Amino acid sequence: MSQIDVLVSEVGPRDGLQMASAVMPTEFKKRWIAAAVEAGLREIEVCSFVPPKIVPAMADAAEVTAYACSFPGLTVAVLAPNLRGAENAMKAGAHKITVPISASEAHNKANVNRTREESVADIARICELRDSLPKAERPVIEGGLSTVWGCTISGLVPQDDVVRLSAALVEAGVDEVGLADTTGMADPASIKSVFKAVRAEIGEEKLGGAHLHNTRGLGLANALAALEVGITTLDSSLAGLGGCPFAPGASGNIVTEDLVYMLEEMGLKTGIDLKKLIACREVLREGLPEEPLYGFIAEVGPEKGGKSVEKIAAA
Amino acid sequence: MSQIDVLVSEVGPRDGLQMASAVMPTEFKKRWIAAAVEAGLREIEVCSFVPPKIVPAMADAAEVTAYACSFPGLTVAVLAPNLRGAENAMKAGAHKITVPISASEAHNKANVNRTREESVADIARICELRDSLPKAERPVIEGGLSTVWGCTISGLVPQDDVVRLSAALVEAGVDEVGLADTTGMADPASIKSVFKAVRAEIGEEKLGGAHLHNTRGLGLANALAALEVGITTLDSSLAGLGGCPFAPGASGNIVTEDLVYMLEEMGLKTGIDLKKLIACREVLREGLPEEPLYGFIAEVGPEKGGKSVEKIAAA
Repeated sequence: MSQIDVLVSEVGPRDGLQMASAVMPTEFKKRWIAAAVEAGLREIEVCSFVPPKIVPAMADAAEVTAYACSFPGLTVAVLAPNLRGAENAMKAGAHKITVPISASEAHNKANVNRTREESVADIARICELRDSLPKAERPVIEGGLSTVWGCTISGLVPQDDVVRLSAALVEAGVDEVGLADTTGMADPASIKSVFKAVRAEIGEEKLGGAHLHNTRGLGLANALAALEVGITTLDSSLAGLGGCPFAPGASGNIVTEDLVYMLEEMGLKTGIDLKKLIACREVLREGLPEEPLYGFIAEVGPEKGGKSVEKIAAA
Repeated sequence: MSQIDVLVSEVGPRDGLQMASAVMPTEFKKRWIAAAVEAGLREIEVCSFVPPKIVPAMADAAEVTAYACSFPGLTVAVLAPNLRGAENAMKAGAHKITVPISASEAHNKANVNRTREESVADIARICELRDSLPKAERPVIEGGLSTVWGCTISGLVPQDDVVRLSAALVEAGVDEVGLADTTGMADPASIKSVFKAVRAEIGEEKLGGAHLHNTRGLGLANALAALEVGITTLDSSLAGLGGCPFAPGASGNIVTEDLVYMLEEMGLKTGIDLKKLIACREVLREGLPEEPLYGFIAEVGPEKGGKSVEKIAAA
């Protein structure tokens, strides 16, 4: 597999589908994953290991994870809100497990029904479980710090809280800490400031990616800011599906198609074929016909201008 | 008037209205300008001095310009495609006249019906006309270089052409050279590259602002890139109205509301009150009821999160 400059991590099958008004049939999830791999995606967050009673859209998590694991070279990421979920995710063979914890105490309680301190303790137990596995079978555990740039319940989150929690997560044993703008309240200056502060505390090796939302239209500008402070993993969602159900007003991950277009135009290799990526939207249209699809480049059409088209044509 | 960090230049009354499907009545244009000034805008491109037969929406250019000039401290900018237009603009009292010239030969011919060389010669005559006025009455002449980042007719435009034409415009006597991504084909890397190259050629003093379109969703990321190479004047349009009628596929200036939100969140002062700015959209709703209005922050509502709201509340 050729070298890439930026890892675009597709979170739509998890973050998008858990927010969708309808449940996507398992067959369509598989078609989406297959089409995304065909387009060149190297990491996909395919599902969430949560109780089916709470999130019916994720009832097929184990089946979807196993299917995704059949693609060689694909990093199969999943989300697990607690020890029970992480255990199931490990059994299903997930390569990477993101465990969410909110930088905002109020949001953490609303989202996972416990204090941040309790979440850190739970994550420590998940890391112990990871360490009980044979080395070759251990998944990467990511502490997914959410509402980093603000909480719709309790407002702005102090940067010191984010830094302190990042250190606590590393102490708890996570392999990396990812930072999420769950509510779309970040701006390019605060993106740079927080990532720099967290890196200074936990070091380059433990610093994961940026999970950005486009709620207020700053998604790609914030992605650019993250790139400029050295972040090389960016989450995004096909057609901008997704958001967080417990953060009122939040809507829409950054659009994978638009992000890939921007990166490739900038000369940054993603390994992703933009035309094939745009073609993936067809699976959403068929599998979730009621869901609105977002994104600029899919509407304008990559053939109408820009350098990436020539690159694709020349590839 | 307090100090600002970035000059947001509203181009909607010109770039937006010349593209709109209906003609906005003069009274609404005046209401828009008054509301924009009330919101804190310091520069507005209020109209285009073009033959009314070609662009009926601009038939009231002289009246609108004179009205705008009644607001103390407001820089009244206009567009004039040729000597005749510039003459009328000067008579009307415009403070700044942007004369468009395309970096792409094909687009220049389509837009102003002459070669780039002929455009430069025409701009030299406009500068002579400026110099024939008493010093206190001389408007700023901006060479508005368009299709800098690509042309929908002839494709990518060589950066060398942009640098060469910028130098020719300075030679012709313009006060500044502004660069426009008419077709929305720029990316943050090419924004930085071109602005740096043009500055190296013509110097800081002659370098004007960035006029960016959001055709492919990169508008604000490109604005951020421009800021990062020291550009402090950014054009934008209320509700994202506008585009270029002779560049098929191009649509939408960057949205003033979203741009101001981003800048203020970053701690950069614009002098603009975001809530009052969003209220300006009401004039568009009434004066151009058929026109779609774009923008994220107006939809989400500034009160739902972000720092700028607190700043406004504290102001």
